[in-house]
Amino acid sequence: MTDIDQLINEVVAANRILAHEGVVDAYGHVSVRHPHDPNLFLLSRSRSPELVEPEDIMTFRLDGSPADGRSDGAYVERFIHCGAYEANPDVMSVVHSHATSVLPFTISSVPLKPVIHTASHCGGNIPVWDSQDKFGDTGLLVSDIDQGRDLARVLGDNKVALMRGHGFTAVGRSLGEVLKISIYLPQNAQVYMDAIKLGGSVKFVTPGEIAIRDSFGPGGRELKRAMDYWARRAGCSHYLEYKKS
Amino acid sequence: MTDIDQLINEVVAANRILAHEGVVDAYGHVSVRHPHDPNLFLLSRSRSPELVEPEDIMTFRLDGSPADGRSDGAYVERFIHCGAYEANPDVMSVVHSHATSVLPFTISSVPLKPVIHTASHCGGNIPVWDSQDKFGDTGLLVSDIDQGRDLARVLGDNKVALMRGHGFTAVGRSLGEVLKISIYLPQNAQVYMDAIKLGGSVKFVTPGEIAIRDSFGPGGRELKRAMDYWARRAGCSHYLEYKKS
Amino acid sequence: MTDIDQLINEVVAANRILAHEGVVDAYGHVSVRHPHDPNLFLLSRSRSPELVEPEDIMTFRLDGSPADGRSDGAYVERFIHCGAYEANPDVMSVVHSHATSVLPFTISSVPLKPVIHTASHCGGNIPVWDSQDKFGDTGLLVSDIDQGRDLARVLGDNKVALMRGHGFTAVGRSLGEVLKISIYLPQNAQVYMDAIKLGGSVKFVTPGEIAIRDSFGPGGRELKRAMDYWARRAGCSHYLEYKKS
Amino acid sequence: MTDIDQLINEVVAANRILAHEGVVDAYGHVSVRHPHDPNLFLLSRSRSPELVEPEDIMTFRLDGSPADGRSDGAYVERFIHCGAYEANPDVMSVVHSHATSVLPFTISSVPLKPVIHTASHCGGNIPVWDSQDKFGDTGLLVSDIDQGRDLARVLGDNKVALMRGHGFTAVGRSLGEVLKISIYLPQNAQVYMDAIKLGGSVKFVTPGEIAIRDSFGPGGRELKRAMDYWARRAGCSHYLEYKKS
Repeated sequence: MTDIDQLINEVVAANRILAHEGVVDAYGHVSVRHPHDPNLFLLSRSRSPELVEPEDIMTFRLDGSPADGRSDGAYVERFIHCGAYEANPDVMSVVHSHATSVLPFTISSVPLKPVIHTASHCGGNIPVWDSQDKFGDTGLLVSDIDQGRDLARVLGDNKVALMRGHGFTAVGRSLGEVLKISIYLPQNAQVYMDAIKLGGSVKFVTPGEIAIRDSFGPGGRELKRAMDYWARRAGCSHYLEYKKS
Repeated sequence: MTDIDQLINEVVAANRILAHEGVVDAYGHVSVRHPHDPNLFLLSRSRSPELVEPEDIMTFRLDGSPADGRSDGAYVERFIHCGAYEANPDVMSVVHSHATSVLPFTISSVPLKPVIHTASHCGGNIPVWDSQDKFGDTGLLVSDIDQGRDLARVLGDNKVALMRGHGFTAVGRSLGEVLKISIYLPQNAQVYMDAIKLGGSVKFVTPGEIAIRDSFGPGGRELKRAMDYWARRAGCSHYLEYKKS
Repeated sequence: MTDIDQLINEVVAANRILAHEGVVDAYGHVSVRHPHDPNLFLLSRSRSPELVEPEDIMTFRLDGSPADGRSDGAYVERFIHCGAYEANPDVMSVVHSHATSVLPFTISSVPLKPVIHTASHCGGNIPVWDSQDKFGDTGLLVSDIDQGRDLARVLGDNKVALMRGHGFTAVGRSLGEVLKISIYLPQNAQVYMDAIKLGGSVKFVTPGEIAIRDSFGPGGRELKRAMDYWARRAGCSHYLEYKKS
Repeated sequence: MTDIDQLINEVVAANRILAHEGVVDAYGHVSVRHPHDPNLFLLSRSRSPELVEPEDIMTFRLDGSPADGRSDGAYVERFIHCGAYEANPDVMSVVHSHATSVLPFTISSVPLKPVIHTASHCGGNIPVWDSQDKFGDTGLLVSDIDQGRDLARVLGDNKVALMRGHGFTAVGRSLGEVLKISIYLPQNAQVYMDAIKLGGSVKFVTPGEIAIRDSFGPGGRELKRAMDYWARRAGCSHYLEYKKS
């Protein structure tokens, strides 16, 4: 099995994991940058994440065109990924999701902030991209490269950008990191919402704590533990089997 | 397999999907207008949606009487469907549901509005029908054609009408469209509720955005993707198999 | 199979249904009055409802003593059932539950009221029994006949009594009726909680609507439909099989 | 099978139960003090609780070093357990969890209190440990014995300490007791949150009630009933089989 075949299997596992953990439903997607060519990335053809198989994984250029000669229907919103990879060479993986508990913060004037340590990798600043600001009324999709670039501009050096009335885009230095961000961002949103409703004051994860936790890096044993667990729950451990040897 | 046999299978799949996605429980139903005769519609006999089989699907006239000579027990509330089909020739499919997260908006003075793009097909105006207004105290069921017509009057040209202390009725230009509305209306209600509780201001999906998204039409590849996903989750893909060929 | 054997099977199914629908967990129970002797009732020995088998069903007298010579461990709180059957000959079935969404109303000064039609059978008045009022500090269990009688006194002619910091007790004219009450009371509590949090005014099910719905009786086709569904979901349809013939 | 082999199986079952009941996810752990040597405790190597097998259970000293010569990766946060066992000889079992519904109370100025009888074993006072107070900015983990001891200091004679932005640590006189605390603490948090949001006054479980319930002891038939249920649900009854004979 080539390293690309293995990476394809990891992307499939990531799709299944995000579906099983309720981060994506019929919609949403996850990609990785191509390890041999930073101008390419791997992303499924247009399928719901829970159903994605290895043969669904296509290779795209940063302008959103397929680089593998395939003409399968692509996600309309692949430009989210194009913009993120183009803007920042450190971004190795991207997730787009409509997770329900995050959505209130995409439409509220109350900003989302990290309150739990497992979500510290989301970073201390979580901007909101509103397509109205630059594009006015649209179909609320990121359907061309201009929109993908504008979203990347608002994302900046952060890990997560919320998208008004739509969802979020998260980026990571590894597939594992962006999975962890995408799984714990909704939980952080739920906890913060509930804490606000209690009516007292709220303590946030501090910038210093975020920096220390960020220095743990985008992988490591604790993340490996989580990947084993998520994969087992989603019934897709076999796509990560080779990693054990 | 005739086109009617196929449509019956699609109605069965729709029942199972709505049950699996938590839109209906022991109660609730979904119908389609008959493709050859606009004065008829297909609807299960009185069974919980999760249990509906092809042989349960009956054919009804717009006055609620069975058109196929069958004497199986019919849903008391089939008049919801009668009223909706009678009032608007564009309505090709109808769902009635008691989805829990929508119910607070059926009893509250706070109106439900679209806040997430996946729910834009619910339309910008979601009226509430209160059976008290015209009928006073009743069993809170739509149990005759007068009530069905009054509900259709309040529904008007909208896609969804809430029903006080009871649930909602949604209509669509296709079975797929009304499924999408019925699945994302509860999610929209949950997100809006949570956003209200955050205490800040809230941004809605704009009329322009709704119009653009509505122009995408009642079907298309994105909806096909969702149907594949919902059917797989509900274990009823076989009822839609022929659609792949 | 005798009618008592059939009734035992129905009680088993009711246990499994309440567990599957999340109304009971490790704790909670359901009983029926003996059809031949109003001074007896059928209730499981002390087991979690999801695990109850036909051989677990014992027969008790209204003082809580076993009437079948068995010495299996009985639920400490069987006196809830004793009190309810003793106080009101119309009560044919009793459920005791700790359902999470009902619990806030057992400790809050805000009373629970019916807001959705499926919960109308809970009645318009839902009193709260606080064991402190008569017994002061206790283990918060209904562990003797005095406590069971005091709870029954507060229940009065109503269908449901909340129990402070503990749960609820529901009574019905049939096993099916008390199942429906117990399944929809938690949903009604959730909907009312959410409606309160929306911040506007709230409409309740009216006394006239409750009376009309109550006149539909404790059974009927609509309830049969629900029983089929709940039993199928809980994997216990076989305990109700004979009812089909 | 030795008593230690049996205890290892119980710890495995406890891991699976906590995972199945949603108390732990990829992270979290549960330990028991060694029955023959109070200076040792049994805890899994670093694995997600749902995946823990008997061969994963290691033996640790109270300084966090492995006492069985094994060099498998240990949980970074094993010092939570070290501190709790060292500080209080009555502590026989420890759970650490990030349960979502408890987390709002770890960051809010509103204290968590017992409101439901099933959570009375959590005790009347639930302190919050904030690692900032003594250690300033950290990775928000209890990663050395100093931190473990400081957490134990704040825990004091209570059963539960919340950990700011992180989770909770619970201790019990038996494995069963700490499981019950860990399962019902999140439910108590949810109920109290919801009661607060209703806007009225709230009644708590009284100190007298807590004392009476505490006197029931850390085991007994009611807890056995729950263990049977939790184990069956988690599919790990076979690890407790010998207890039936």
